[in-house]
Amino acid sequence: MQKLFVIKIGGNIVDNVNKLSAFLKDFASVKAKKVLIHGGGKIATKIGETLGIQSNYINGRRITDASTIDLVTMVYGGLINKKIVAKLQSLQCNSIGLTGADADIIPAIKRPVTKEGIDFGFVGDIEAGKVSADILQMMIEKDLVPVVAPLTHDCKGQILNTNADTVASSIAIALSKYYDVRFVFCFEKKGVLENVSDDNSVINLITKEKYRQLLLDNKLFDGILPKIDNAFAAIGSGVKEVLIGDADDLLQNVTDTTIGTLIK
Amino acid sequence: MQKLFVIKIGGNIVDNVNKLSAFLKDFASVKAKKVLIHGGGKIATKIGETLGIQSNYINGRRITDASTIDLVTMVYGGLINKKIVAKLQSLQCNSIGLTGADADIIPAIKRPVTKEGIDFGFVGDIEAGKVSADILQMMIEKDLVPVVAPLTHDCKGQILNTNADTVASSIAIALSKYYDVRFVFCFEKKGVLENVSDDNSVINLITKEKYRQLLLDNKLFDGILPKIDNAFAAIGSGVKEVLIGDADDLLQNVTDTTIGTLIK
Repeated sequence: MQKLFVIKIGGNIVDNVNKLSAFLKDFASVKAKKVLIHGGGKIATKIGETLGIQSNYINGRRITDASTIDLVTMVYGGLINKKIVAKLQSLQCNSIGLTGADADIIPAIKRPVTKEGIDFGFVGDIEAGKVSADILQMMIEKDLVPVVAPLTHDCKGQILNTNADTVASSIAIALSKYYDVRFVFCFEKKGVLENVSDDNSVINLITKEKYRQLLLDNKLFDGILPKIDNAFAAIGSGVKEVLIGDADDLLQNVTDTTIGTLIK
Repeated sequence: MQKLFVIKIGGNIVDNVNKLSAFLKDFASVKAKKVLIHGGGKIATKIGETLGIQSNYINGRRITDASTIDLVTMVYGGLINKKIVAKLQSLQCNSIGLTGADADIIPAIKRPVTKEGIDFGFVGDIEAGKVSADILQMMIEKDLVPVVAPLTHDCKGQILNTNADTVASSIAIALSKYYDVRFVFCFEKKGVLENVSDDNSVINLITKEKYRQLLLDNKLFDGILPKIDNAFAAIGSGVKEVLIGDADDLLQNVTDTTIGTLIK
């Protein structure tokens, strides 16, 4: 099977014009089939504040009410997504911007109200195995580069807000049917660190064994666990390998696995 | 060649939730290959006002400054486009939302400053023959229904605001290479009227001869001339026929040419 890079970027890049511009240049120059998934960043919150839409959070998760889903549909699906696409076009990277509603690539289920009575609103959970890999593959084989916003839909006419990490890993898993998928997960650190305050303490390789040991030794910093769990889930579902780290390092050395953290 | 409907809707439908919903139901039920192009409507102006972005007009044309292009990218390319796509998905119409930047379907040229020194800002003029009919055809043949927002790009990284009528006719013309294109132009009137205040005075057929006569007799109301000119230009470039009128009538009788105005 052919190699495919599924690359995810988050707010630390999307919110920073210079970083985004540098990233897209590197991304465009990756000479292989590829897909980009972008997070939302803080710009939606900023625009929302100006529009008088308040951000509500429960346990660190934004509640997506009717005004908020319109806001993120505009900002994630319109502003951020189309700016990225236009920029990539200027770099001779023929991209196509998508949400999960487009071509029905990511159907989802509106999250039910929790037992504790928490209603997250218009938030979508992706059903495993339901991502339309066929349409994405058709585009990729036509040398189009899908650029996917963190939005899905409920198949009943409603756009839903969905965690970008989940969108990315669902796409990576779905495309494993057709490609040797290498899932590249860009974030603000150089990789998984043994010592959170030391950028030079990157763990270059995490196997399941190693992960168990790190957990036992209580070495991993908060916030990284879901990412590693996500990575192993992806590998368990067909993804070849996951690379976690800083976008600059990862894309400039996309064939050299000694930079960042490789999860296998 | 197979028949293809290229259908354009404007603000009178996009701005009205009930009308849009009724239209999309009719649109979804058209049993033929089809493409939808939507205008922007007044919602961008409303959201812009709340965001403190002033609309500036010269000779009735909006000036698209940096804030305005971001605004319309969000609203046309995100909010309106993705809501339409999600709604069509719920009606079993597998649509895909696009701007001219996506898959480079509509490259354009930023309008130069006029001799009189008027700078329209980030407005794009489409170059005849440059629309990527191949990619659209590939989608259509995969039973995807393209839903196109009135945005193009300059191939140098900039999204541009483009007249929706022009986007629609350019797509209709480009796709004539592959299909018998019937261009359906929905607007607020029942068709081209002989007497602008009488909705029953629809002219059912306009040929070039008839058009010349109507112009000589000074019978046509203001605002309709560019639409008819646009229609004849499309026909001159390969489009089979153009139908102008009210969305309700046109889509419910899409094979019956006695409703609305047929231009041939």
